[in-house]
Amino acid sequence: MIETPYLLFLGDAPDQLAAKVAQGIRDWRPENAVGQFRMEGCEADVGLRNMSLAEARVAGAKTLVIGVANRGGTISADWKEVLVEALQLGFDLASGLHNLLRDEPDLIAASHVNGGTLHDVRVPNVAYPIATGRRRRGKRVLAVGADCSVGKMYAALALDDALRERGVASTFRATGQTGILITGSGVPLHAVIADFMAGAVEHLTPDNDPDHWDIIEGQGSLFHVSYSGVTLALIHGGQPDALILCHEPTRSHMRGLPDYRPPTMELLRDMALTLARVANPDCEVVGISVNTQHMSESDAMAYLEEVEERLGLPAVDPFRQGAARLAEALERI
Amino acid sequence: MIETPYLLFLGDAPDQLAAKVAQGIRDWRPENAVGQFRMEGCEADVGLRNMSLAEARVAGAKTLVIGVANRGGTISADWKEVLVEALQLGFDLASGLHNLLRDEPDLIAASHVNGGTLHDVRVPNVAYPIATGRRRRGKRVLAVGADCSVGKMYAALALDDALRERGVASTFRATGQTGILITGSGVPLHAVIADFMAGAVEHLTPDNDPDHWDIIEGQGSLFHVSYSGVTLALIHGGQPDALILCHEPTRSHMRGLPDYRPPTMELLRDMALTLARVANPDCEVVGISVNTQHMSESDAMAYLEEVEERLGLPAVDPFRQGAARLAEALERI
Repeated sequence: MIETPYLLFLGDAPDQLAAKVAQGIRDWRPENAVGQFRMEGCEADVGLRNMSLAEARVAGAKTLVIGVANRGGTISADWKEVLVEALQLGFDLASGLHNLLRDEPDLIAASHVNGGTLHDVRVPNVAYPIATGRRRRGKRVLAVGADCSVGKMYAALALDDALRERGVASTFRATGQTGILITGSGVPLHAVIADFMAGAVEHLTPDNDPDHWDIIEGQGSLFHVSYSGVTLALIHGGQPDALILCHEPTRSHMRGLPDYRPPTMELLRDMALTLARVANPDCEVVGISVNTQHMSESDAMAYLEEVEERLGLPAVDPFRQGAARLAEALERI
Repeated sequence: MIETPYLLFLGDAPDQLAAKVAQGIRDWRPENAVGQFRMEGCEADVGLRNMSLAEARVAGAKTLVIGVANRGGTISADWKEVLVEALQLGFDLASGLHNLLRDEPDLIAASHVNGGTLHDVRVPNVAYPIATGRRRRGKRVLAVGADCSVGKMYAALALDDALRERGVASTFRATGQTGILITGSGVPLHAVIADFMAGAVEHLTPDNDPDHWDIIEGQGSLFHVSYSGVTLALIHGGQPDALILCHEPTRSHMRGLPDYRPPTMELLRDMALTLARVANPDCEVVGISVNTQHMSESDAMAYLEEVEERLGLPAVDPFRQGAARLAEALERI
């Protein structure tokens, strides 16, 4: 668990997109952040109060979260200065960067001053067990994608919001670094050792109240040959009661795989459901989340209507419309 | 690569079963071993010449392979004495034990005397790439199981033998520690980081001559919820042209999962083939390997005949009958 509230470090972000982790925290868990820290030349702004490190500490901030991607795969000297000072002021640090905080001797040294913790959320810090397959109490829904990067995390966070609005108990369960930083906990599934992937997902989604929903963040795709094993571990470790199909209709080939076409929604539905029923015979596909960002409003609406009719399932773009209809569909099972 | 030939360390094995790694080397790659080393009280014997360490060195042995499981998860003082002496005599050591050679300071120290290498084959020593999904030259066959421990490695090694007997170029590609010790190389897939599983399998089965067969050792099962992700990474990283279904018909539940029934052969065939065709649209199921060790000869033959008729595929127990009919079936595609 990463201690909240956060101060969001935007560094010298060259544009708004570079700060997408900070934006995600701002969008989905604004209560987790007291403010933002911007360095000279920073071109990103997530709309929180600008604060110095000392001001944020006074406001109660416990952790400085690196909410921005770095350039060139190194932590620059300019960043380092801020991070060291934060540790000296008693902050913990949290980062999803590829290069790890724990590999930087000056950060380790500075962390000893006040006993600050260095959270590298991209790597596991738990020895996960081997999955037992035992049925657990409580309910679970998993977002499964036709491809990578089709909006699975967004759909899951929107669904979590929509359930809460309806007074349904739910928890978003992060399985990637951005989700972990947004919520403060989770499993970096991509970095888990093969034998323990499904066990890590069981660990993430333990027994719960019978009416509680775990909203499990999806990863990869059964149809993406680089990462499909991770996806199947999510399906079998999560033993979902419900699946949401996620899709980006304008894509002509699988992400990073020019020779692979994305599957149809029907093929995704059948494959995911057949596999999910190995772990949970009662699993059902309850809805479809479509990322229509590259379509006009009218094309998007026409497409959603067509898919909805074809598959007989509610189809929404959670960014345009929210996920209320997916939440309704979940409540019916 | 582990240097051959080996001397097989049987230690103080309490029975023959404890020495199954050594037995596997003796059965499948006898040319890889000059002899066996047995300690006082050893109850296993794989039928090779008993040799001292010094005799084996004179006979050309390069690596002392731990061919036996240890008890209690520690490397005992008695074993240690032999292993240290072997390193001093210039042997490399190779082990698939859970507790690693490289974690033992006295073995590390002894390895420095003659520059001996400590091979812990249970953990990867390569930074595997992310899978690209690019089609590779040469042909590949993968053994997929209804469950764990149904004879996939045995079937693959028998098939490799049968192909060679027919003059077909083939290579057994090990994906677990026993197979790696038998052949001297491979990928310990269970210990690979999630993101790199399929890439590790691509790395293991690179471009080859158009008529060459890679016989890829299977792991886990699509229907075994603890390990199914590993199996799917094999299917998508291996992009097999052919699948062999592997099965143990007397099992009432999945290994280690009392609440899960094994799938039918039909279900295994359909699921494995549908997933395999994502990576290789031309993939076919060519045969069935049945482990009939818990059946009488007549029951086994009746069962094989029934399955063969039902699925329209050659069905053999490679232990009882060899894998010639599976090799024939492969040659037809």
